[in-house]
Formats: sequence, structure tokens, C-alpha cells
Amino acid sequence: MIGAEPYSRVMPQTHAARRKLAQAKIAALDADAALITSPPNVRYLTGLVSSNAALLLPAEGRGAVATDSRYEDVARRDCTDLDLVIDRFIEPALARLAADRGVSTLAFEAQEMTVERHEGLASLDGGPALLVPLGRVVEELRMVKDEDEIALLARACTITSDALTAVLPSIRPGQTEREFAILLERAMIDLGAEALAFDSIVASGPNGAVPHHHPGERPFAVGDLITIDCGARFGGYHADMTRTVALGEPAAWQREIYELVATAQRAGVDAVKVGADVSDVDAAARDLIAAAGHNEHFQHGLGHGVGLEVHEAPTIGYARTGTLGDRVPVTVEPGIYLPGKGGVRIEDTLVVRTPGAGAAGPHEMLTTMTRELLVL
Amino acid sequence: MIGAEPYSRVMPQTHAARRKLAQAKIAALDADAALITSPPNVRYLTGLVSSNAALLLPAEGRGAVATDSRYEDVARRDCTDLDLVIDRFIEPALARLAADRGVSTLAFEAQEMTVERHEGLASLDGGPALLVPLGRVVEELRMVKDEDEIALLARACTITSDALTAVLPSIRPGQTEREFAILLERAMIDLGAEALAFDSIVASGPNGAVPHHHPGERPFAVGDLITIDCGARFGGYHADMTRTVALGEPAAWQREIYELVATAQRAGVDAVKVGADVSDVDAAARDLIAAAGHNEHFQHGLGHGVGLEVHEAPTIGYARTGTLGDRVPVTVEPGIYLPGKGGVRIEDTLVVRTPGAGAAGPHEMLTTMTRELLVL
Repeated sequence: MIGAEPYSRVMPQTHAARRKLAQAKIAALDADAALITSPPNVRYLTGLVSSNAALLLPAEGRGAVATDSRYEDVARRDCTDLDLVIDRFIEPALARLAADRGVSTLAFEAQEMTVERHEGLASLDGGPALLVPLGRVVEELRMVKDEDEIALLARACTITSDALTAVLPSIRPGQTEREFAILLERAMIDLGAEALAFDSIVASGPNGAVPHHHPGERPFAVGDLITIDCGARFGGYHADMTRTVALGEPAAWQREIYELVATAQRAGVDAVKVGADVSDVDAAARDLIAAAGHNEHFQHGLGHGVGLEVHEAPTIGYARTGTLGDRVPVTVEPGIYLPGKGGVRIEDTLVVRTPGAGAAGPHEMLTTMTRELLVL
Repeated sequence: MIGAEPYSRVMPQTHAARRKLAQAKIAALDADAALITSPPNVRYLTGLVSSNAALLLPAEGRGAVATDSRYEDVARRDCTDLDLVIDRFIEPALARLAADRGVSTLAFEAQEMTVERHEGLASLDGGPALLVPLGRVVEELRMVKDEDEIALLARACTITSDALTAVLPSIRPGQTEREFAILLERAMIDLGAEALAFDSIVASGPNGAVPHHHPGERPFAVGDLITIDCGARFGGYHADMTRTVALGEPAAWQREIYELVATAQRAGVDAVKVGADVSDVDAAARDLIAAAGHNEHFQHGLGHGVGLEVHEAPTIGYARTGTLGDRVPVTVEPGIYLPGKGGVRIEDTLVVRTPGAGAAGPHEMLTTMTRELLVL
């Protein structure tokens, strides 16, 4: 599962603008510079697609990216306004460079850096005097997407919707969950996905009661609800969509929970707008499910941010705080899971929009496949 | 890329035996217990396949595995001789349990634990008094495989050999690297791989000079050497194999470097035996390449261990120390890379064997596809 990375779709000036925002946060922290090591954060701030790269970002002035010789050519092409350090040991190389440039206090990403690597930097000859945690500064910036990012995410979502729409008619009694998952995943690649955003979930019949069920050898049977949670990755951005379909005419209880989840999902989606509190968005969907007596059958959060990672900030949940801003993409994915019987989940990826300035409403739906109950 | 995990192929008593070896190391470290958090290490010692699991392993006595409710059923099935803690926050849960059981000094995996998570454990109310690094105790145990593991790895290697053999005849001028990579990856899945061991490398023509080239939109052309590095995963175990083929009659320089790499690879393979020093194995291949004037065209190590990770201990390289033992699987993968022109790499996965006791020779080859230069 590999693919051509459409590097060129995001311009170097976009990464420079992102770095400027991060630099203001580093300055506010009283650090001289930050060592960025979390892979999606490095990619976000540099545009470099590398499995071994880090960024030294001073509070002011020009940054430096380090990577090994495998990525030298692509780094020269994509990081034209950064200094380039080619070294297999990217972190000590940048820590020494920082000290050489007069950095005394270096912020690091404690959520990503291991204790072992931290020890190595702290005891490095010629390294900075003080290491302090940076916090989730870059993750917070990444919540709000620029239009380049939304375009890549939208493409990932379109591929996902189109792929599932294309392969759903092939569902047959006797086909296994795993067989269908493979068909679906191949359709995403054939439609232009560079990779899968995550391992697909295909949960049929009683397996539908397990939110994260891995597709296995169970054959589909008439009378099943089948929950399919899947996503394509495009240009580094992760789509996330779930649909539940019926194989054969659904029973009354199946229609009932389907309609309840669909109504709750619609209510959750409707609550997604600029300024909405994430716990209110969660409640908009959860309260309907709880009122119908299914509170204990919906035990996960309502949704999450998506972008360079499939799960990123913000989390939409009942015990969460924070408000949604313009250009924040999120998922809305309520479900009902009945142990031993089955389940329903419906999930879309959408992005918050400020109405008026070109936007049709308070959000833009990125996964557009029908949410009607499809009976196959 | 998902699949049925053949959990049942490794028996609980196997995991218990592995834990016993780890416990002796923990006792030798003067720790009361270890908190195992590295995912392959947790799987190795428990048999549990979970994306969120940790193991509390006391120096003596019964261990406890923690995972969240998604994995409760599978943990009850597969971890019958461990206590089970169902908690979303697996590390604090096990740290508190450790303290409750009288653990004062808890060893942790500093190579995996982030600074942030470590801070959380160090400041935990009701946690152990002292945290000390465990080191790579479990990684070292994992170097030597038991027969259950070798059987899974052998199956992964057979799938890999069979898949590449099956799709090679489809190579055509005009086909892109990416198109061929997709065909190959689908063949591995169709032959029973649960997933890919890693993103395949397909490097044609001048791209062959880049050891880790990602398959892109370059179309194959007559006169290309094409290097294909691929592997299937089966039961958690990772195959790793590389072949280089010619599209059309190869030029003299292409035959020359191919024969040189093939000879060097054979020499490296022949050096793999019980008691061999890893730097001697590296030298067996590297010296031949250097003697032919290509020293600077072979800049990576000769090979590495494979198992629950695609790269694991031992590393076979010229500046490495250590000797090979019975039942250690390794790769042998010399290459010659000529910038702007192309390259050749040939790689096998094989396992060290003690001759006599049922073994035909000093090692057993697991990837068996021909190493003759195939001209397509």
C-alpha cells in the first residue's frame, strides 16, 4: 500500500506560514527554539515526507530540517526555505546545531520523545543547556486546516464514498467480512488513494456489536446488519466514514436502531458550527440515543478531528471541553451496539465553515454517500 | 490490509515459557517487576493481539495484562494464565496494581515510553516508588525464535516467494512501478498474507540506485533493471525478500553488477551459522563488493533480524558486535547502487540452525525463489 505523494499540491509558502504561527507560540513559552520530532508535526511544518526527519524551529528566524541521505533529494526540492542537515542521527545533529546557534532552552515534544532519546539529548556533549516540554502546540495549530489541506481531505473523502458505493452491490450471502474488506480496500486504491487511512472495519451480524471489530472469516447471512468503517488517505490526509447496510429485509428492531442512529447522527451534524461546544455537539446526538433507552449501548465519543492523522484534536465527547472553529474537520459517528445481536454506526467527515464567505452553511460535508438504510 | 490473526497457532504455554526467561532477567536487574509497553514485546510475552495492551511482569509469580474493553473477550481467551485488568488507561492501572502488590522498584521500557507518559507514572498517586529502565531485555529474548515462530515466519516467506514468482511474468514496458507494486501486494494477500510486512519497494532503471525508493509513476522500459523488495506478514511475523530482474537483455554493466551482488549475497549467506560474528558475516559479502571497486556503492548494513518487527535485533553490519545463535532469523541483502544509472539488491530471509539435530546445514533458507538473473 504505497503511492505517489502529491507533494507539490501544498506550496512552500504555506509551510512557512504555519511555521510563523508555531514560532509565536515558542516565543511565548520562553524557549529559544523547539525541536519538532512528531512525524505529522514535522510534515505539517516542513512539507517533507520522510520516515526519519526532525525540525529545529527557533522562536525567531530560519529553521533547519534534518533527515538522512535517503531523503536528501526530496528535502532539497521541498524545503527550499529551511537549512538542511543530512545526518542519520537527526536529533543529536539538530540539538548540537541549536547550541551552536546560541539556543540555551530547547523545547521538545514530550508526547512523542521517548525517555531514552530524551536522556541522549540531555546528556549530549555540545547540546542545549535546558530541555523543556513544548506541549501540543503544533497539534493545536493542526486542528484548523488551511484550504490546501481541506482540498486533500475532501479528495480522500470522495475516494472513500465512491469506493464504498462501487463495491456495496457485490455484497452476497456467504461472502466473508474479510473478502469484502479486501474488495473495498482495493477499490479505494484503484480510485486514487495513496494508502488506506486505517484498517477497515467490516462487522456483520452479531459482530456489529463490537465497535472496532476486525473483519474475519464470518460469512454474511441474510438478516445481517453490516457496519463498514473505512477511509482513504490522499496527500497525507485521512478520510473516515462509516455506513451500516442491511442484507435482506431488516427486522423491526434493526430498522428501529438504524433510524435512531441516523436521527442522532443528523442532530450531531447539525450541531457542528463555529463556536459550538464539543460537549454540546456530543449531547445533540447522545441525548436522543439515551432518551430512547440506549445510553449504555453507545459508549464511545461522538467524533474526532481528522487530518495528517486519522484521530487528532479536537475530541468530540461528553466530558470534553473546547469549541469548534472555522476550518476544523471532524467526524460525527454515533452508534448503538447490542451485545450478541448486532449494531449500527453512521459516520461522516465534515468541516466547520463560517457561513457567508462562500460557504453554503455552518459546515461542509466531505463524505457524501447516502445515509438512507440500503437494503441489499 | 487486515486479516484473521491465527492466534491459536502459538500455545499459551509458549508465552508462559517466554515470560519465565524474562522474569529471570528482571530479577537480575534488582527490579521487583517490569512494565512491558512495547507492542511487539507485549504480544511476544502474552500472545494477546491488541493495539492497547501492557503487561506487568513481576520478577517472580503471576503477571497481569491490561487492555481496554474492546479486547476483553480475546484477552480472556488467549491469556488464561495471566490476571486480566480491563481499563482504558492501561499503564496507570498496572502501575497501581504493581504498588498494591508490593512492587517498590518498577522497570519500564525507556526505548518505548514517552517522557510524558513517564512523568504520568512517576507522579502517580499510589504508584511504585521507583521507576528504572529495563533496557532491551525482551528484544534480546526475541532474537532467538522458538519453532512456533519459525513456522509462522516460514509461511510468511513462502507467501512472499510465491507471490513475486506469480506476478513477475506480468511485467511489461509501460507498466508503472506503482501498478506493479499493487499487483504484487494483492498477490500476497490473495495467497494468505494477513497484511504486508512493509510498503513494497519497486525501483526501476535509475531509481534502482535509491535503496528505499517508493514506487512511483515511472513506467518500466526495456533495458531496466528492476529491484523489488517485498514481504508478507503472517501470524504477526514479517518476511523480507528482494530480487532484481532485467526487462530485456541486460547490458554488460548490468550483468556484471548483478553477478557481483549474487556472489556477495551467496558468500554472506554461507557465513550465516551458529557462532558467526555479525561483522564477519557482513565482511564476507562486503569484501567481495569492495574488492571489485564498489565499496562506496554499498552503504547500508548487510542484514537484520526479522520477527514480530520487520527490523529487529541482531543488526548485521561492519561496525556491529555479537554472534549469531541457533534459531536466529536474519536477512542477507547486499546491493550495489550506481547514482543516476541503477542498482541491484538480492535479499533472503534465513534462519540459523545447529547442524545435526534435524537441520540439513548451518542455516535454513526461508525465501526460496530463484536468485538467477531473470530476463523478462
